Order: sequence, then structure tokens, then C-alpha cells
Amino acid sequence: MANINENYLKLKAGYLFPEIGRRVKAYSEKNPNAKIIRLGIGDVTLPLAPSVVDALVKSSQEMGTSQGFHGYGPEQGYSFLLKAIAEHDYAPLGVTLDESEIFVSDGSKCDCGNIQEIFSSDAKIAIGDPVYPVYVDTNVMAGRTGEAGPDGRYANLIYMPATKENGFQPEFPKERPDLIYLCFPNNPTGTVASKESLKGWVDFAKKNQSIILYDSAYEAFISEPAIPRSIYEIEGAKEVAIEFRSFSKTAGFTGLRCAYIVIPKELKGKTKDGQEISIATLWSRRHTTKFNGVSYVTQKAAEAIYSDQGKKEIRENIAYYMANAKSIREGLQKAGYDVFGGINAPYIWLKTPDRLSSWDFFDRLLDKAQVVGTPGSGFGPAGEGYFRLSAFGKKEDVVEAIRRISAL
Amino acid sequence: MANINENYLKLKAGYLFPEIGRRVKAYSEKNPNAKIIRLGIGDVTLPLAPSVVDALVKSSQEMGTSQGFHGYGPEQGYSFLLKAIAEHDYAPLGVTLDESEIFVSDGSKCDCGNIQEIFSSDAKIAIGDPVYPVYVDTNVMAGRTGEAGPDGRYANLIYMPATKENGFQPEFPKERPDLIYLCFPNNPTGTVASKESLKGWVDFAKKNQSIILYDSAYEAFISEPAIPRSIYEIEGAKEVAIEFRSFSKTAGFTGLRCAYIVIPKELKGKTKDGQEISIATLWSRRHTTKFNGVSYVTQKAAEAIYSDQGKKEIRENIAYYMANAKSIREGLQKAGYDVFGGINAPYIWLKTPDRLSSWDFFDRLLDKAQVVGTPGSGFGPAGEGYFRLSAFGKKEDVVEAIRRISAL
Repeated sequence: MANINENYLKLKAGYLFPEIGRRVKAYSEKNPNAKIIRLGIGDVTLPLAPSVVDALVKSSQEMGTSQGFHGYGPEQGYSFLLKAIAEHDYAPLGVTLDESEIFVSDGSKCDCGNIQEIFSSDAKIAIGDPVYPVYVDTNVMAGRTGEAGPDGRYANLIYMPATKENGFQPEFPKERPDLIYLCFPNNPTGTVASKESLKGWVDFAKKNQSIILYDSAYEAFISEPAIPRSIYEIEGAKEVAIEFRSFSKTAGFTGLRCAYIVIPKELKGKTKDGQEISIATLWSRRHTTKFNGVSYVTQKAAEAIYSDQGKKEIRENIAYYMANAKSIREGLQKAGYDVFGGINAPYIWLKTPDRLSSWDFFDRLLDKAQVVGTPGSGFGPAGEGYFRLSAFGKKEDVVEAIRRISAL
Repeated sequence: MANINENYLKLKAGYLFPEIGRRVKAYSEKNPNAKIIRLGIGDVTLPLAPSVVDALVKSSQEMGTSQGFHGYGPEQGYSFLLKAIAEHDYAPLGVTLDESEIFVSDGSKCDCGNIQEIFSSDAKIAIGDPVYPVYVDTNVMAGRTGEAGPDGRYANLIYMPATKENGFQPEFPKERPDLIYLCFPNNPTGTVASKESLKGWVDFAKKNQSIILYDSAYEAFISEPAIPRSIYEIEGAKEVAIEFRSFSKTAGFTGLRCAYIVIPKELKGKTKDGQEISIATLWSRRHTTKFNGVSYVTQKAAEAIYSDQGKKEIRENIAYYMANAKSIREGLQKAGYDVFGGINAPYIWLKTPDRLSSWDFFDRLLDKAQVVGTPGSGFGPAGEGYFRLSAFGKKEDVVEAIRRISAL
């Protein structure tokens, strides 16, 4: 038999969400009449905006004609979408991007998972804790870590705890990392970084010759004007950072699949003997070799969110979710919970009451309130004792969930 | 600066098609009135079938409603599509597949490129020569090869030459491989493997405990009833083979992006200390960690090709391309060329005349006939002295191209 990649065996069994699914299923079977409300997974619930549907329908019809058919497109994305991204997502922030610095893909999960491939197999990785599990798991699979210890931490990975004590700002690592994964607005804590804080990271990366992998999938949920929407708002960030963006949460594309990453031409890596290499060139080689572009109809749908009407519709959807976030946040506060996030992000992060473990609180909430959330410990050891609720549900469900939790 | 994956630097500059693009552009600029006919890249040209467009439009509209909206889907693919694949693509061949053995993705290029990740970094790789460059390049990027030599061959990779002399059947390697990439109907040679020949490979893989990566993206173009459409038609193949299929060529989805791979539950790999591991389980972990499923609308479009009407439309498109293949094949034969393929595949492989190198023949064809094809040497050293023409063009272009080539 062929030898397998044994790094996969280091992965702790099961991704977080399957385990949640298992417990919910078991509960439903025992309590067939329970009306369970799911505020767990970060999936959107509102239908696609009319402008998006319209673009999908029109481009699908176009694909059925000789003149309008599109076969293989450019792997990096159609120029019409690259232009729209540069013009609408970055120019208003004072950030100038060339089309060649933007790479359209089928999802931020894929981008966040694949980006490590272009770096050295012994690159030292720093990650926030708690964190989106994909950053960690893909590095485990690539062999950059040792085994997981009894505390759930993988050997040879730098954890940067973000807890109530430090205002959920990951701490600068003591050891020099090659790659630093940052996510703001943060999943799962719902917290954000100020300009000063991000400037600290850019300075740290420059000093340590590290590269920041900046996941800003939730940028559209930022409501406070002082909060940076892109790391490139910080001077010099183009020399040290890759930015990840997604249409999934911004425009409800979770079932449509479109995202992009930005790799400025200033960003360089090096070989072990010191030769400078353009990171965008490396990524382009990966992207064109292991990927074949995003569907034409999906890219037309993504373009539609940048029209005036599209922008308006998207803003309304985000306002709907953020009204949910406010209800959850304020409702829980009123009920005496210690809560964070929910102002510039669709996630509310709470301290479990009575020093319950994250999973014990999960079980209590499911059992007593029939509400499903996400145990903080699923996002990393420093998430233990915390719990995530998502604002992506339907308004009436959110109201009912908060009513039930308040009555506990 | 962060250290990069230096294996990327071993890649020979430029993928084949950008170089073709460069030469065609240079020629066009010098000859602005030349009417260039492109029979190079393997992209389809007919519009999407009406059934497919209809499914796209309906599912897009569905996504705009509360009841019909679909967010994240199962990474492996929706059950409706997995069922359709098992029922229509495999059951008629006498091959029984469970839904859990099929993984839907956004393209065969991605699948062929990603599959190596679940195997050991020192797995020994055997590839046909000539071959689809993605098999080779992704293994170079993963560090399984040494540098390329002056003959264009990477060290530590097993090449299995397929030339006129051996009827374009890759030869069994002398050294034991862990993974064997096979592609039938073959890209680029357009040739096929008989049942006996495939049985030889299955026996070889069993004896050597190798795994066959069987790319059958062009299966829909098989016209001779004796030719196997799936490697699983060979007894015992489920224990040794992964099969790759695509909607790209079958149904013109190159711009829509949908494919799938089959990993039978019988297929096992092992750890270095001899523990057996299910390959489907490993792939599932990769697929759910680094990928987030194919768009709902695309999966509905793929499902549509299995309806009676969809099947009829798809067959008509394939007949159109295969009529082109016949014109090219017979036209070139009449003009005195030594040609192969084009009966069970949309590719015609020809021996260059006058002992011209592949690129010299490319330049001659461009210069004298304004026809663009693909140099055989771009697919590997054993492709030198050969040339690929694709049948995916428009009928009138194909006729005109053959007229021009015949007049040379």
C-alpha cells in the first residue's frame, strides 16, 4: 500500500461542527418535539439580494448563447471583478491596488487553507488562540507542527492567547514567527483591532521579517468609523501582509462560493540562501496550477454587489444581522452575562457562567433552552470557558433564543 | 523575510499555455489582419445546454427566496448530485458506488492537483510521458522530485514514455511506484486503453501495492463499445484506484466548474509502521478542511445533465466535437500526416513532419496557416516531435484550419 501523509493522524478527531451536529441530533431524537434554535454555525440565512439573483440569471442565460458563452476564465479572476474590488473595497480607504495584486477564489476557507503551501515546510507559525480551526489544521496537515499535547496545543506552533484579560488582543509572540495569522473582526470573539494595535503588528512583522496573514472576512460588519477595514490602511503594511476577503458573509455567498486575497507586489519572501522572491508570483503559480478559476456566473454575481442598488441591498442585510447582534448582546448583558463582540462583528462571545466548561455550557443551553451555540474551546485552548453565539439567525429566532436564555 | 517553499523554484518557467499565448500575441501584433484559428487549448466552445441553463436560472431564483436559499452545503456535495452520479455514470457499467465514495469538487484540475497532499512526502510518483502538466507540477511543488535535468525530466520521478512505438501505452515502470497517474482517454495523445491493458495496470498496482490515480475526464468521448469507461469495470480495481471525472468536457462546464472523484471504501494506504488507513477518510479530512463545497446552483446544473433531455443535449454537443475530430483526423491523414487519437477522444496527436521539433512546427503552423495548436513537448520530453490539435473548435474553423494545413 502507498504511504500516507501521517501528519493527518495528528489532527484531533473531528472538526468542531460535526461534534455539535452529533450532540444536537442525539438531543432531537430524545426530544422530538423540542423547537431547537441554532445560533451556532456562522452561516447566513437571508436569501441572496435581488441584484445578485438578477446577475446570476442574466449571466446563466448568457452562457446558453454562442456569443455569451464563457469557458475557462483567467484563474486569477475576470478583470471586471478585479477592477470592482480595487475601486470599491480599497480605493475609498486610500489603498491603491493593481489588478495583478488581487486573486479571486472560491472561498476564504480555501485561501486560508492553501496559502501556507507557498511557504517553507519548516516555517514557524503563530496563531491567535482562540482561532478559526482551518489555520491550525492546514498547518498540522502540512507537517509544521508536532503532536497535540494534553492541553490541546500542538507542539511547535506559537499560540497567542486572546482573552478577557488582554482585551482579546493576541499577544506578541516571544519567539520569532515566519507567518502570523490574524483575524479582525475576529472569529470567534467578535472583537476588533484598533489602528494603533494593527500598527503594532505591522511594526512587529517588519522588525521580525514575518508575514501577516490578515483575515478580514467580516470587514463588512464594522460599524465604528475609527476601526480599520483593511490592514493596508496601516502605512507599510503592503510590505508585510496578505489580506483575505470573502463575499460569503458580506453578501451571503456561503452557498455560492467567492472570495479573494490581496498580495501586494511589495511583499517578498526569501530562499534559505537569501534570494528575494515575490510572494504574489509564487501564489500565482499555485493558483494557476492547482485551481481553475471561479465560475463566470459567480463572478458576475459578485460584481453585482458593487452597483449602487447592490450596495444598498447588501447594507440592508448586514443591518438585519447587526440588529440581531445587538439583541443578543444587550439581552445577554441584561441577563447578567459577561459579553464581548457584537458591535463590529456578527459574533457574540460570552464568558460561561458558574465557571462551566464550554461544552458543559453547550449542553446546558441545549438542554434547558434548546439553543445551539458554539463552545469556545472548539476554537483553541484559550477559548475554554467561553461560548460563541452567531447573529446570522432569523430575527424571531434570535428574540426567542434570548427570551429562553434570560429565563434560565 | 519568511522562507518560501523552494520547490516552486524547480518548476520550469511558465506553464505551457502562457508561452503559446505569448507567441500568438507577438504574431498578431506583427500581422494584425491574420485570421488566426485556435485549436490549441482544450476549452469547449458550444454554449451550455438548455437544460443546464434552465437549472441554473431556476436554482438562482430559488436562492433569492427564504424557503429556497442554500448557504453552506455539504463539502462532499449534495446528496441529489451524488445519487445521480452513482446511478447514471456507474450503475450502467455494473459498478456500484455508495454516496460516501464520491466527492464533488470545483474541477478536475484541482482534484488532480490536490490529491497528492494526502500521501507521504516521499511517495514515489510514476507518470505517463507525455502528460497533463498538473500531475507533474503539483508533485514538484510538494517536494517529491529533484531538479529538472537538461532533458526536461525531473529527478526522482518515474517517467513512463508513451510513443508511436508502444502504441501510446505507458510502459510499466521498472522501479516500484507508490502512485501511478494514468489518463484514458488520454490527454494529450487522444489514445485509449483496452480492458486488457487496464487489467494489466490493476494487476501491476496490486502486485506492487501502488495506487492508480485514474483520470477519465474525457470518458464521454469514448465511441467504441469495447473501451472501458471506468477503471472500476476491471475486477479488483476498487482496491487500487481513485477515479477522476469532470463535467467540464462532458457538459461544457469549463466556465462553470464542477467535477468529482471516486474513492472506494476498499482503498487503503498505510503508515510507515504498517497501520492501514482508509484513503477516503483522509481525503474527506482534506476536502472538509481546505474546501467548502461547490455552489448550489452549479450542482443543480450538473444534476440537470442526467435528465433524459439533458443527456440528449449533451450527446449532441459531444457528437458535434467528435465530428470535428473526424474532420481533423481524416483531413490530416489525407494531407499525409501520421495521426493518432480522435476516435475516442477530442484530441488529435500528430507526428510533426520533416523531423521538426514541436515548437518549430508550432511556429510553422502559426506562420504559414495561422493555426494554433499545442506543441507535444509541452506535455513532457516524450512528446517532443508531436503536436496536439483539439476538436473543441467551431465546425467552420476546423474545416478552414484543415484546408489551410492541407495547402501547406
